[in-house]
This record gives sequence, structure tokens and C-alpha cells, in this order.
Amino acid sequence: MPSRYLNFRCSVPWLILFLQTLFFIGFFFCFPDGGSIYWPYEFYPEFQDINHMVIFGFGFFLMVLRRYGFSSTGFNLLLIVLGVQCSVLVEVLLVFLGVQQSEGGMTSVAKAVMSMTAVAISTGAVLGKANPVQLIVMSLVELIIFYGSRYINSTFLQVPDNLTLMHVPLFGAYFGVAVTSRFPEPPPGLDKNRRTPKSDLFSMLGTVFVWMFWPSFNSLLTDSKKEAVLNTYFALAVSAVAAFMLSALTSKDGKFRMTHIHSAVLAGGVTISYTAHSIRHPWIAMILGLLGAVITILGSHCLQRCFNPAFKLQDTSGVHFTFGLPAVLGAVAAVVLRVVEEGISTQWSHLSSLGYLVFVEIGAFCQTISTALITGLITGLILNIKLLKTLHVSKYFDDQFYWEFPHLSVGF
Amino acid sequence: MPSRYLNFRCSVPWLILFLQTLFFIGFFFCFPDGGSIYWPYEFYPEFQDINHMVIFGFGFFLMVLRRYGFSSTGFNLLLIVLGVQCSVLVEVLLVFLGVQQSEGGMTSVAKAVMSMTAVAISTGAVLGKANPVQLIVMSLVELIIFYGSRYINSTFLQVPDNLTLMHVPLFGAYFGVAVTSRFPEPPPGLDKNRRTPKSDLFSMLGTVFVWMFWPSFNSLLTDSKKEAVLNTYFALAVSAVAAFMLSALTSKDGKFRMTHIHSAVLAGGVTISYTAHSIRHPWIAMILGLLGAVITILGSHCLQRCFNPAFKLQDTSGVHFTFGLPAVLGAVAAVVLRVVEEGISTQWSHLSSLGYLVFVEIGAFCQTISTALITGLITGLILNIKLLKTLHVSKYFDDQFYWEFPHLSVGF
Amino acid sequence: MPSRYLNFRCSVPWLILFLQTLFFIGFFFCFPDGGSIYWPYEFYPEFQDINHMVIFGFGFFLMVLRRYGFSSTGFNLLLIVLGVQCSVLVEVLLVFLGVQQSEGGMTSVAKAVMSMTAVAISTGAVLGKANPVQLIVMSLVELIIFYGSRYINSTFLQVPDNLTLMHVPLFGAYFGVAVTSRFPEPPPGLDKNRRTPKSDLFSMLGTVFVWMFWPSFNSLLTDSKKEAVLNTYFALAVSAVAAFMLSALTSKDGKFRMTHIHSAVLAGGVTISYTAHSIRHPWIAMILGLLGAVITILGSHCLQRCFNPAFKLQDTSGVHFTFGLPAVLGAVAAVVLRVVEEGISTQWSHLSSLGYLVFVEIGAFCQTISTALITGLITGLILNIKLLKTLHVSKYFDDQFYWEFPHLSVGF
Repeated sequence: MPSRYLNFRCSVPWLILFLQTLFFIGFFFCFPDGGSIYWPYEFYPEFQDINHMVIFGFGFFLMVLRRYGFSSTGFNLLLIVLGVQCSVLVEVLLVFLGVQQSEGGMTSVAKAVMSMTAVAISTGAVLGKANPVQLIVMSLVELIIFYGSRYINSTFLQVPDNLTLMHVPLFGAYFGVAVTSRFPEPPPGLDKNRRTPKSDLFSMLGTVFVWMFWPSFNSLLTDSKKEAVLNTYFALAVSAVAAFMLSALTSKDGKFRMTHIHSAVLAGGVTISYTAHSIRHPWIAMILGLLGAVITILGSHCLQRCFNPAFKLQDTSGVHFTFGLPAVLGAVAAVVLRVVEEGISTQWSHLSSLGYLVFVEIGAFCQTISTALITGLITGLILNIKLLKTLHVSKYFDDQFYWEFPHLSVGF
Repeated sequence: MPSRYLNFRCSVPWLILFLQTLFFIGFFFCFPDGGSIYWPYEFYPEFQDINHMVIFGFGFFLMVLRRYGFSSTGFNLLLIVLGVQCSVLVEVLLVFLGVQQSEGGMTSVAKAVMSMTAVAISTGAVLGKANPVQLIVMSLVELIIFYGSRYINSTFLQVPDNLTLMHVPLFGAYFGVAVTSRFPEPPPGLDKNRRTPKSDLFSMLGTVFVWMFWPSFNSLLTDSKKEAVLNTYFALAVSAVAAFMLSALTSKDGKFRMTHIHSAVLAGGVTISYTAHSIRHPWIAMILGLLGAVITILGSHCLQRCFNPAFKLQDTSGVHFTFGLPAVLGAVAAVVLRVVEEGISTQWSHLSSLGYLVFVEIGAFCQTISTALITGLITGLILNIKLLKTLHVSKYFDDQFYWEFPHLSVGF
Repeated sequence: MPSRYLNFRCSVPWLILFLQTLFFIGFFFCFPDGGSIYWPYEFYPEFQDINHMVIFGFGFFLMVLRRYGFSSTGFNLLLIVLGVQCSVLVEVLLVFLGVQQSEGGMTSVAKAVMSMTAVAISTGAVLGKANPVQLIVMSLVELIIFYGSRYINSTFLQVPDNLTLMHVPLFGAYFGVAVTSRFPEPPPGLDKNRRTPKSDLFSMLGTVFVWMFWPSFNSLLTDSKKEAVLNTYFALAVSAVAAFMLSALTSKDGKFRMTHIHSAVLAGGVTISYTAHSIRHPWIAMILGLLGAVITILGSHCLQRCFNPAFKLQDTSGVHFTFGLPAVLGAVAAVVLRVVEEGISTQWSHLSSLGYLVFVEIGAFCQTISTALITGLITGLILNIKLLKTLHVSKYFDDQFYWEFPHLSVGF
């Protein structure tokens, strides 16, 4: 057994080396003159915001397990830098195939980082259960499938390009849930997947960071930036208020629960992601923020008590209710708002065109979620074949399996 | 007794729900066409800076108590998102009443976040002693009174609008001190209000964040941004230097004391807030930064030894000397600098107009501080009536009273 | 013995006071009309980025020792704010002497903060071994020598001004190594210089921050910002990937080592600092990032096993391999790339001008590194004379020697 683990660990660097060599070759051939990648500069502050949110924010947001802090931030950074390179190459390939317009420069890298949010979210679902090889394979597969799903949405269903990227939380959450369902459950006595106040504080630090940068995320690619920023801000504000309210209402003795706060304060940003640019009344954004927090906290109770035990899945950092359910709600809200808006402007006369509109929006949603679930299941099955040397459940949730601890005697 | 606490906790979510419903209705009626709120966009980076400073910076700056980390960051976020909504509504109301020009959009939200700094500061004074119901009531009352005080300053005393907002630290600190004086003192043996090196490190993290964003805070609304930024930066730099110098001079054995550093490095930013836009020589800014640090550190010794025991008040995170005293100094300095500047430019000939100037500046200062003290005292009295179910002193400074701790056995 | 320590500590504030008074006088005479310092404003976001990186990022990056967290962040802040003032004055002096064009305003302060990066890096080498007096003397001496070295480079060797500042990591690292070699070694049994998982987490937080802001650092002063930003980003991404790969390859059992990750993820940014603005192909940037990480991790093994014991030097946070070696590599790469580029464009016909080019580039590099080493050695000798009351080795790496710990009984 130990030798098998040793073998597994020794394969990690070679996999990374192989991928990095591939990316080198890709960049060498894709940017022969190098010109197109160095294009627009004005984008820099927004680009930095997205970077902060994904690398710093999610890295610390995921630090929920008491013995998994190094891996949470470390692997998050590794996956994102690998994924960004892959994503830039995929985009160049799509431009080369004539599927997409060239955008070049920082826009393309910023979109790559945004796509990686899906991977960061999926990682949260298998946190502590997947080894680095599995994580790397999962993230690259997920990234490519996500590009495929976006391509279908934008080509066949005419969804605007900036909106296809807003499916990131939906895709990431359901892909992650599907993958994690194929992992064996940890034994009931294992206490390494518990939280400590310290890990909760670090996670709160990351959560506040993600919270603050969510308006930048929702407004990055849209033309009506000011609407997107303010609507997202109001939705986030109300969902933070609602998070405290509902946490106290649903927990024993009226105490707040930190996990509720972590997940529900972000719900507003997720819920409004499809509609932030088009809402013209702040109170609609606020209602969406409230509903997002409600569905997150109710979902966290239902899922953890009924759904997860029934399907024997363990969603380590709760991405299903943190990102999945609010995204579903947001998609439904987008359809309703679009129909109402169109209906009012045409005075409910062109019902057939309305029907087409509904069909397209629901089609994009169903396509994304079903692709995520099906490919997630397949990926989960592939990740658990013998070749990838899955972790024994007793080694779950433990930094010491991946990291040298020269400071063991000192105590955490 | 336990049932009473239970009752109290069960009232928190209903209060939040009630307020949020009010805000919904307010936003619904205040922005019927929604147009005016989505206005200028160029403001976004500055708006983000203020958000970082208030939500992230103050949230971690307040994490000074060893068993109160969750509440420090969590309640700070809750109060700010509630207050921002309230503040936007109050601003709309003032515009509707013709009292104020409409500004719309991100400016109005940014000003709302800036006003909330007063609440964040006051929270520091009652940290660990007020329960969430008291905190919410206090913050909304304070916010509305602060708008009233600003209205008096700008209407009757002709203080420019951007300067009225600079009374934020002064108002927040003295309101907080007045409120906390009405709370019963903790028993002398209680050790939960001590700091630990860990809480001090997190607090240092927040302090550095607030320090870095203070130039953005002081320059947000002024027209001469570059002067405001650079003067604030120099004042902050000198006060950081002076903080180390004075901490070593005043403490036993010449050691540094972390609480001194926390409070005095920020003193420069507070002291210069009234004059940052108008100072034309960096050395004046630096002198102000030095004086700010001096008054903070001397104040911390005097207040904690003489003033606080005499008035039986306990200012948990020391907002009186961190924000209150430097703000008083800043107000005095503003008068002196204004008089000297005017005096030189008119060659001391129009002494009567000089007198009027002094009268107005001092009037604005006295009005702000006395409003803060009087309304703070009244608010403190109201907060301690039976209805709001004040906390027993033995429950002070303890996260476990408000938060579920599923990780109790693990140890902090 | 205790009285000697007491004496030392009592001299700290007076030294600070003396310096601050000097700076006051300097600012008073250097900016008589104050006009020139308040100049261009557009620079503000980049200026903030550099501040974040140096003050927040390096402050927490240096928090690697388990009992030295307060000093790491605290002294970093103190040194930087002292150094920035000194640096602004030196710049004014150089303008006054006609050596340099006046730039004024935020550019000058931003350049001052960038120069302080050299000091922050050197501090890492003597971390825990130098007392505050030594640190302050070292940082001011280093700063002035660095200005001298830059002056030689720009005047005699015609290096462009923005490139002279890019010697910051090279100069800082080798100056620090030379200084630390003059400090007595800690006794072998001392365990205070070990890391803990907690200190590693805080250090990771700082590292991620520095990582994210490195593109701003490399692009601050150059005209071709977009190339500088993107090349740095790609180099950083590849070096992060390579850090994980090489850490697993070189450590026992294929585990990752946190110290490797800390240092090697930044290697790409250091390596590319000389060439970020001129590279026209992203794959070259990526190769440089890879080589940077390789040299850092191999260097960390070689230096810690062979070089450091042989020279009896102890480089506490490993700045030699984190910043020194990648900077050397970057300088070599800059020469090679320049020669190849010029060679191709002139079709290898003007070999004499090529030779001159190589001579100048290598001259600037040799001048910088030899100045750093020689003056570093001298500074190290001066710092260890009796007058400055060096620390006894048993007091190394300990916050309690500099900071009051009212919370001693609580435990870290």
C-alpha cells in the first residue's frame, strides 16, 4: 500500500511537466508573431479584480477544513494557473477554427480566469477527497467541456457571449456535485473534515474578499457596467442581511451558524449574474438577493439532511447550495424577467415570439446543467479508475498526505 | 434567565426582516423609474477602495478580542450592508425634500459606505458588550443622526458637502464613547476581553488594510485629489513612524506595544482628514501626522488610567484615542491653518471676516461633537432598557453566545 | 547584560526621532512652495498596487518564523515608511544636483516605494537576527547606496531609468546575503527559527498577494505596459506550475514543501523583470518563468546544503534563492535576448555594436551585484560593532524581546 501511494505521488510532477510542455508548444505555435495577444490595455484594473477574487478569494474561501489549509490555497493556485494557460489556448483554437471572434490581450486572459471560477467551485465539492492528479485531470476536462457548452449556447441558442460566461457558477457547481457523487464516502468516525474556528476565520477572510469583488465579476464583460455593478452590489447586500436573518431563524436557539453566512452572503451575486446588466430597478435586484439567500439556507438544510445521504454524496464545502441552487434560481428569474419585460413592451401581443424567447433561455439553462451533470458523472467515474490511484478514505482531508510537515511537533 | 436570552435571540431575525422589508418598500417607491440611481460609472475603483477599507479592513481591524472573531467580522458586515441601504434611502429622501442635490449612482452608494465608517467606529467602542439587536438599533439611529448633523453643518454653517463627511471619525468615536458609557462594566476578573497574539495578528492585517486605503477615503469626494492623496500618505507615513517611536518611549523596558501600533498608525489619516485637500506643503501634513500619533498614544495612557475609570466606561477597542482625539486635533488644526492662510493672503487686514471664519469652523466642530455626545448618551440609555434585553456582563466578549460552535472540542 | 539590552531598546525611539526630525527639515527645505510634489494624478491605481504589494504583501510574506509575526509585519511597515520619506528626499536632492529630471508627485513616491522593495528583501535575509536599530541603519544605508548604484548605471552605462529600478530584487537579495553573513550564527539547538503551519499560512497569504501584484510592479514605469503585464503574468503562471512540479520532484516521497512554493511561485516575476516590456512572444516569457522556478528550487537545495554552511551564513527567509538567483538568471536572459534581437534585426553584421551592447548590459549587472556585495559586507561589519549592541544569539527570532506580551499566559 505505501508503495502505491508513493507511486501516485511520484506521478504528479510528471503529469504537470507533460501538461506544461504541451502548453509551451501550444503557445509557440498559436502566437507565432505574438502580436495579437498584446492588445487592449484599458482592461487592467478589472483584470486584477478578477484575479484577486479567484486566486486570493477562492483560495481562502475554500480553507474550511481544519487540516487542509495548505492544499486549499496551494492547489487552487496550481489549478488556476494551469487552467488559464489551457483556456487561452482553447480560445486561440476557437478563433483559428472560425468559431469565435479574436479578442486578444487582457480580455482573453480575463475570460480565461473567469472560466476557471467554474473549476474553483467544482474543486470545493471534492475538496480533500481528490488527489492532485485527479484535480488536474478534472479541471482540464471541465474547462474544455465548459468551452463546448458555451459554444453550443452561443452558436445554436444565440446566447450573447458575455451571458454564456455567466453560467460559470451553475456549471461549476453541478459538475462538482456529479463528480463528488462518484467518490467513496468518508467513514462516519472521521473527524478531519470538521471545521475549527481558525479555519472558519480564514474562510471568512476569503468570503469577504469574494463578496467584495463579485460586482467586478458580474460587470466585466457587459456593456452596461454601471447597472451590473450596482445591481450586484444591492443583491449582495440584501443576501448578506438575509443570511444572518435566516441563519438565526433556522438554527437551534437562534444562534448564527458560520457555514450559513459563508454560503448565503454570496448567494445574491450568483442569483443576479444572468440579469445584473438588464435590471432597471434596484428593488428587483434586492428581491433576487433575498430569494438567493433563502434558497441557499433552506437548501443547505434540505440537501444535507435528505438529498446528500440519499445519494451518498458528500459535498465538502457545500458548493451545491452555495453556487448551484442560487444559479438555478437566477436562471429561472432571468426567464421570468425577460418574459415580463418583453410582454410589457409588446403589450403581450407577440406571444409566439415570447414562446421562442422562453424556449431559448430554458434551452440554454437545460443544456448547461445537463452537460454539467452528465459529463461530471463520467469524469467522476474516470477519476475513480485504478489507474489514477484514488485515495483511501482514511487519508481524506489531510494536508500531511501531500505536504512535508517539518513542524509536526509544534502543533497546529 | 436562559429563556430570556432565548427570547432575545429569537427577536434578532424578526428585527432584521422588518428592516429589510422597510428598505424594500423604500427602494420600490424611491426609484420608480430606477433611472437616477444608475448614473456615473467612472467612480468604480474609488468605490471599491472604500468598500475594501470599510468591510474588509474594519472587519478585521476590530478582531481584537480573543473569543470574539466571528462576531467582529460578521456583525461588521451585517451592520454595513443594512446601513448602506438605509443611507441610500435617507439620501433619496433628502433629495426629495429639496435639501440636497441629487447625485445618483455610485457616488451616492460610496457616500453611504463612507457614512457607515462612523457606525463601524462606534461599534468598536461597544464591541463585545452590545448584542445584535442593540447594534442594529444603534447603527440606524446613529446613521440618521449623522445625516441630521451633516445637514445642519451644510445648511446653517455653509460647510462644503465633502467636508461634512469628514466628520465621520469624530462623530463615530464620540457617539460610541457616549453609548458605551451607559453599558454596565464587565467584572474585573473577566479575562475574555484580553487579546491573544493570534487576534492581534488578524487585527494587524485589518489595520494595514485600513492604513493603505485611507488616502482613497480622504480623497474620494474632493476636487483636488492629488493633494489629498499625497498629504494623507505623508501624514500616515509619519504617524506610523511616530507610533513606533512613542510606543517604545512610553512603555516599560522600551518594548513596543501592539495596541499602540494599531491605533497610532491610523492617527495621521484621521488628523488630516479635514485639511488633506487644502494643504500645499507636505511638511505640514507630516507635522499633523506626528501630532496625531502623539495625541493618540498619550491619550491611550491618560484615558485608560484616569478618564475611563473615573467615568466607569470601557472602550473595548479604544476608539476614543484611535479616532476621537486625532479628529479633535484635526479640527483644531483645520481652524489654525485656515486662519493663517486667510490671514496671510489678506495681510491680517480683514479681522472681522477672519473671526466669522473661525466662528463657523468651530461651530461646525462643536455642533458635531455635542450632537454625537448627547444623542449617544440618549441612545445608550435607550439601548439599556429592559425591552432590548441587555446582555448579562458575564456573557460579554464571547462568540459562543451568538454563534454555533460545532467545533467546540477542537479548541481555538 | 540586561541593562545593556535595556540601553539598546531605549536608543530605538531616539534614533527614530532623530531621523524623523531630519526628514521634517528635509521636506521643509526641499519643497518650499510645495508645488512640484503634487503633480500627476493618473498614477493613483498603480501607486496603490505597489503599496499593497510592498506593505501588505511583503509584511505577511516575511511572517515565516513561528514567534516573529509581530516583528515581521510591524518592522516591515516601519522601515518602509521611513525609507519612503528618505527616498523622496534623495530624489529631490538628485534633481537639485541636476543629475535627474524632476518627476514630481505620485511617480516619485511610487518609485520610492519600489526602491523600498530592495530593503524589504534584504530584511528577509536578516529576519530575526537584526534588532530595530540595525534594521533602520541598514535600510537607510542600503537605500542611499542603491540610489548611487542606479545613478552609475543610468549615467555611465546609459541604462534607461525604468530598467535601473528593475535591479531592485538583485540588489536587495545580494546586499541582504552579504549583511547576514556578518551576523553570528544561531546555536544549532535553537528551535525558534522553525516554521509552524500557522506562520506558513500567513506567509502564503502574503505570497499570493505579492504574486498578484507583480505585474503592476513590472509594468509601473515602462511605456509598453500591456506587454509588461501579460509577459509577467504568463511568467508567474508558469513558475507557479513549475514550483509544484519541482517541489514534488526534489523532496522526499514526492510531497510538496511549502517553502518551495513560497519562493518559486515568485521566481517568474523576478526573472522577467528586466525583459517584461520588450518580449514579443508569450512563450519566451513562459520559458523564463520556468527557468526561474528551476533555478530557485535547485538553488534552495544547493545553497542550504553546501553554500550556506560553507560560508556560515544563515539566510532566514531564503531571499538568496527566492530573489537573488532568479534576478541573476533574468539579467543573463536579458543580455541573450537583446543580442539575439539586435543580431537578427541587423543580420549579425554590426558585431562591434553588438559587443558594445553586451558590454554595457553585463557592466550594469556586474556593477550592481558587486556594489551590493561589497557595501553589504561593509554594512554588515558596521552593524556588528559594539556600539549598536547586537543581539545575543539566544535572543534571535523572538517577538518577546521587542514587544510587550500582556497575553503571555494565553499561549500562541
